[in-house]
Amino acid sequence: MKKITSNVKPIIYEPAGADEVCKPRLLVLDQRLIPYEKKYIELKTYKDVISAIKDMVVRGAPLIGITAAYGMALAVRDVVKTCHGKSLCEELSSIANEIKNARPTAINLNWAVDLIMNDVRAIHELPVHEAINAIEKRAIWIHEDDEMRCQKMGEYGAHMIETCGHKSVLTICNTGALATGGIGTAFGVILTAYKKDPSIKVFAAETRPRQQGARLTTFEFIENGIDCTLISDTACGYLMKKGEVDLVIAGADRIASNGDTANKIGTYQLAVLAKENNIPFYIAAPLSTFDLSIKSGEEIPIEERSHEEVTHINGETICTKGVKVRNPAFDVTPAKYISGIITEKGILSGDYKSSIKNAFNETVIA
Amino acid sequence: MKKITSNVKPIIYEPAGADEVCKPRLLVLDQRLIPYEKKYIELKTYKDVISAIKDMVVRGAPLIGITAAYGMALAVRDVVKTCHGKSLCEELSSIANEIKNARPTAINLNWAVDLIMNDVRAIHELPVHEAINAIEKRAIWIHEDDEMRCQKMGEYGAHMIETCGHKSVLTICNTGALATGGIGTAFGVILTAYKKDPSIKVFAAETRPRQQGARLTTFEFIENGIDCTLISDTACGYLMKKGEVDLVIAGADRIASNGDTANKIGTYQLAVLAKENNIPFYIAAPLSTFDLSIKSGEEIPIEERSHEEVTHINGETICTKGVKVRNPAFDVTPAKYISGIITEKGILSGDYKSSIKNAFNETVIA
Repeated sequence: MKKITSNVKPIIYEPAGADEVCKPRLLVLDQRLIPYEKKYIELKTYKDVISAIKDMVVRGAPLIGITAAYGMALAVRDVVKTCHGKSLCEELSSIANEIKNARPTAINLNWAVDLIMNDVRAIHELPVHEAINAIEKRAIWIHEDDEMRCQKMGEYGAHMIETCGHKSVLTICNTGALATGGIGTAFGVILTAYKKDPSIKVFAAETRPRQQGARLTTFEFIENGIDCTLISDTACGYLMKKGEVDLVIAGADRIASNGDTANKIGTYQLAVLAKENNIPFYIAAPLSTFDLSIKSGEEIPIEERSHEEVTHINGETICTKGVKVRNPAFDVTPAKYISGIITEKGILSGDYKSSIKNAFNETVIA
Repeated sequence: MKKITSNVKPIIYEPAGADEVCKPRLLVLDQRLIPYEKKYIELKTYKDVISAIKDMVVRGAPLIGITAAYGMALAVRDVVKTCHGKSLCEELSSIANEIKNARPTAINLNWAVDLIMNDVRAIHELPVHEAINAIEKRAIWIHEDDEMRCQKMGEYGAHMIETCGHKSVLTICNTGALATGGIGTAFGVILTAYKKDPSIKVFAAETRPRQQGARLTTFEFIENGIDCTLISDTACGYLMKKGEVDLVIAGADRIASNGDTANKIGTYQLAVLAKENNIPFYIAAPLSTFDLSIKSGEEIPIEERSHEEVTHINGETICTKGVKVRNPAFDVTPAKYISGIITEKGILSGDYKSSIKNAFNETVIA
């Protein structure tokens, strides 16, 4: 299939010149300003990377992993020059933990950083220049690998949409180029389906409190020419009940080995409403999102974020001063509500425990 | 039971002096400015009343009905002096229709205006002064009657809460003094329960797009000293699934004769989520909210409001420019999801068709 691309580029990495005169450059699009302004920020050190992840300059589970990987590459470049052997590993291991702690829920962050750390253990006897190159290559590979995974998810998901004749899709949060290294997960599926059938229509749920649906997803759909309608999170059930939604697709931040899926707060509600209205509910996520170390969603820690996300919008208060707030950033959708999980290895469904295991064992499942 | 009151007064009507030197004054709290500012607006003519209803200076189904009744009283005062007999009825009938068209979904509006019009047909042979007085008395009666209904709903609902031992209640939109002529419907139930058990806790859902939960309900809970936590609409299902919600109560804009209930957009979702999590879901609404002329919720027209409600908050855009929008203001919760309807005649449940009929036939049902 022809490669599908999006115009939106959330991360740009320029490797150092071969002579090391030019340093590498890591630029990220400041997603806090989208859709109002397109501004890139240069991240010069791994500390900058941590801040960018913590402050949600970059967001979306896969993109956080990619950014973290480049962050590790920057750290290696700095650390490798001053310490060697065991102390290099120790130093980077401590930096790796620091980066991993930037966000508690996204498993891709751990996955990417751990992959880099595996390589670090193998490079400590290499000459400095080769060591730096090896880690940089790995970070670029993590980025390109995610791009390829998005392509595959897009193909499998679009095939399902085409086969089932779905014409109207509801999605939540942002799962597009802004969240990944490629065309996106749930968004990538819709974009690929749109390339086959331009009549497809999308509802983007606002996704309070951070409004990623309203700010980012409408931006990406419009940039790609897709017919997109913004709705309040309160209107999702209404449209499902009215028969205006054929399919719900969401991304994932972490998937347990039984298929239970942590994703943006509000996803669980959509899944319950979809079930109640006999609408298929799909998750689209690469295998890097799966955490086989946990048996069920019960074990996924749910981050509670700042109260200001709920009480303020565009810097202005929307409620009575001094009110208490709860702000869980994610929820867990039990596997029983999920019609299928679209991965780069095919669409998992049915008995998730075994279909997930098969996907990791490279069994052909599609 | 002791009369429960709220400090919040959304409407004040001062009758004319007996000598007619002083004109009557109708003041309404501009609810668009709550919780930031408490400002009263004087409505001098029925045209002002229509604007106030249309622009949501006043909102909440019962309060809209009360305001409309006072609007009719103002209209009678103006019209009665210039025309008589049949032409008076005709003129007022046309004004009544104008007022009824200010908002399409709220049944209380029709109910209150029709009640006034019944009286109008009886007064056209009275002296001007007596005619004016008769209609004014009726409008005041509609107001006081609603206050009494709120008290009764509060008592029945609070008794249920006390009996079931519910400690944590989730509610949507605003259903308090700001929405009614008394302590409110769902809000009044919670306020009355709080007077019996001050340890009761409340979750207020933001209620996008107009955020009445965040703006008005948190204001009313805090003004009354009730422990209130604001949450995004996306977090309701999460908290229900976590077992942090014992009960959901919502108000109603119109209830069909089978119990299907139109209320603020997002209510249907809460009902489905409550059912899925075995949490009781109650509606609190006076009998004036029931529309026995319709068999089911299918017949309730759903108002779609301005796109700016979805795309702008506090006057600022929250999404990509030019995106399409759907903005249904209400949804219909089928009766099967409703554990009970708290009315001033007791709590209706089970076979709604017959329990609603009984309530209207004055049968004792509590």
